Amino acid sequence: MGTLFQQRLEAAALTTESALERLLSRDPVPGEEARPARLVDAMRYAVLGGGKRLRPFLLIECARLLGAEGRAVVDAAAALECIHAYSLVHDDLPAMDDDDVRRGRPTVHKAFDEATAILAGDALLTIAFDIAASADAAPAVRVELVAALARAAGVGGMAGGQMLDLAEDATWDEAALRAMQAMKTGALFAFAAEAGALFASAPAVERDRMRRFGRHFGAAFQLADDIDDVIRDGAAGRPSLATLLGPEAARAMIGQEADAALALLAPFGERADPLAGAVRFMVASAR
Amino acid sequence: MGTLFQQRLEAAALTTESALERLLSRDPVPGEEARPARLVDAMRYAVLGGGKRLRPFLLIECARLLGAEGRAVVDAAAALECIHAYSLVHDDLPAMDDDDVRRGRPTVHKAFDEATAILAGDALLTIAFDIAASADAAPAVRVELVAALARAAGVGGMAGGQMLDLAEDATWDEAALRAMQAMKTGALFAFAAEAGALFASAPAVERDRMRRFGRHFGAAFQLADDIDDVIRDGAAGRPSLATLLGPEAARAMIGQEADAALALLAPFGERADPLAGAVRFMVASAR
Repeated sequence: MGTLFQQRLEAAALTTESALERLLSRDPVPGEEARPARLVDAMRYAVLGGGKRLRPFLLIECARLLGAEGRAVVDAAAALECIHAYSLVHDDLPAMDDDDVRRGRPTVHKAFDEATAILAGDALLTIAFDIAASADAAPAVRVELVAALARAAGVGGMAGGQMLDLAEDATWDEAALRAMQAMKTGALFAFAAEAGALFASAPAVERDRMRRFGRHFGAAFQLADDIDDVIRDGAAGRPSLATLLGPEAARAMIGQEADAALALLAPFGERADPLAGAVRFMVASAR
Repeated sequence: MGTLFQQRLEAAALTTESALERLLSRDPVPGEEARPARLVDAMRYAVLGGGKRLRPFLLIECARLLGAEGRAVVDAAAALECIHAYSLVHDDLPAMDDDDVRRGRPTVHKAFDEATAILAGDALLTIAFDIAASADAAPAVRVELVAALARAAGVGGMAGGQMLDLAEDATWDEAALRAMQAMKTGALFAFAAEAGALFASAPAVERDRMRRFGRHFGAAFQLADDIDDVIRDGAAGRPSLATLLGPEAARAMIGQEADAALALLAPFGERADPLAGAVRFMVASAR
């Protein structure tokens, strides 16, 4: 049972998982030579069978809110999850965060080896763009989807944010942390929400509204995650708004981000209930 | 001066370099937050100011042969070169080939550090798809371009070939080496030639012809490269057709690949002279 949000989150997870199963097949598609078993295994290990699928949920529900649904939307959600999974595989590498365990299982470079993990990340990133470009939507929608996904994931988005996060000489004041997180995690959330507007061929003003909603949603999610880290590991963890300002102030910030997100949903009325439920869930879980 | 091939190769290198300069700007494009200086520096270090630009030459000349030219073609060539450059950055990493020097300069992980090299490769791979999706061509052409590039670069192409190349338990007979090279280097050459047909909106049969041409071209290039390695490093180098069969037999194979490539160009008459010149140059330089 659960709340409407939890039901929709579970449904999004199931459809995304099934799309990933289909797309990460062991058989090559036209234009490919063959898919080496070890590389497919590592890609599947990285992306299947775990994760809350919060980004796919956001994409699918934002699309539905604007009147778009179907296989193309689900494929876009799968592409987004491939990008998210690639970023975890590369971030876990010894040269980056050097993590041995993720979601209770050995990380990809532990379960396989470092070279395979680098290649599996590369291949997940690459296949995401094949999936987005091959979705069952008008070519004009697909090119916008590919370009938006690339900008959210690349030098001016997630990868750039990870670069900032690694900078050893950084001064982590509030503004710097906000800017880093907006790129490192915010950009993919903004894309997820924007993709809904893309599929619905919504006007630019709607697209912008959804991007802003995704950004606030992502910021609230990140703050909740940071508070969680402080509670688990104490203030010795990596710099975050929760370590800098303390959990109390971080909780107040979640409230502000949530209010901004909910205000952007207000014009949609109760049709936005699953998304509003997700926002309220984040606020509640960070208590 | 030089031959027609050499003139066109130089021209392709110049236009590609200038496109890369424009595309790897330090300023963010719409949809990006900011471009962290260190990451842009590493990306530019990896892709600017070096390389023969043979893949861009192939793409630009195949497009011209089929009647397509202009900024979209050059941008596709730049996207392809970003993919090629990313593959070199990641292949050079300690966990992969562990190379300290490339084209007479420190590799990216030596000039910067390992984490930056991983991210610079990721960001080059990512921006390639933004460039392809944003090219000045019809959306239907752009989605085909993105999908073909992803398939050439990913699990069923270049990344898959690198995975096969790293397999320690592999039995490197002629068939296995050919299959590995067809993915590791052949797939990007096949894409370069096919992209020409894509821009020209050529029928499937022409597209297939260009792919086959690119595959033979790439095989001849790889054989010449392998022979070069044997002459420099002796037979102790990594397994290749040149180490397995000897330089003599490898030279004979270049001849066969060149003949097959030239036969596919024959219907175009002297309009294919720059490409035919490139094929003949590879044969001559492998003596």
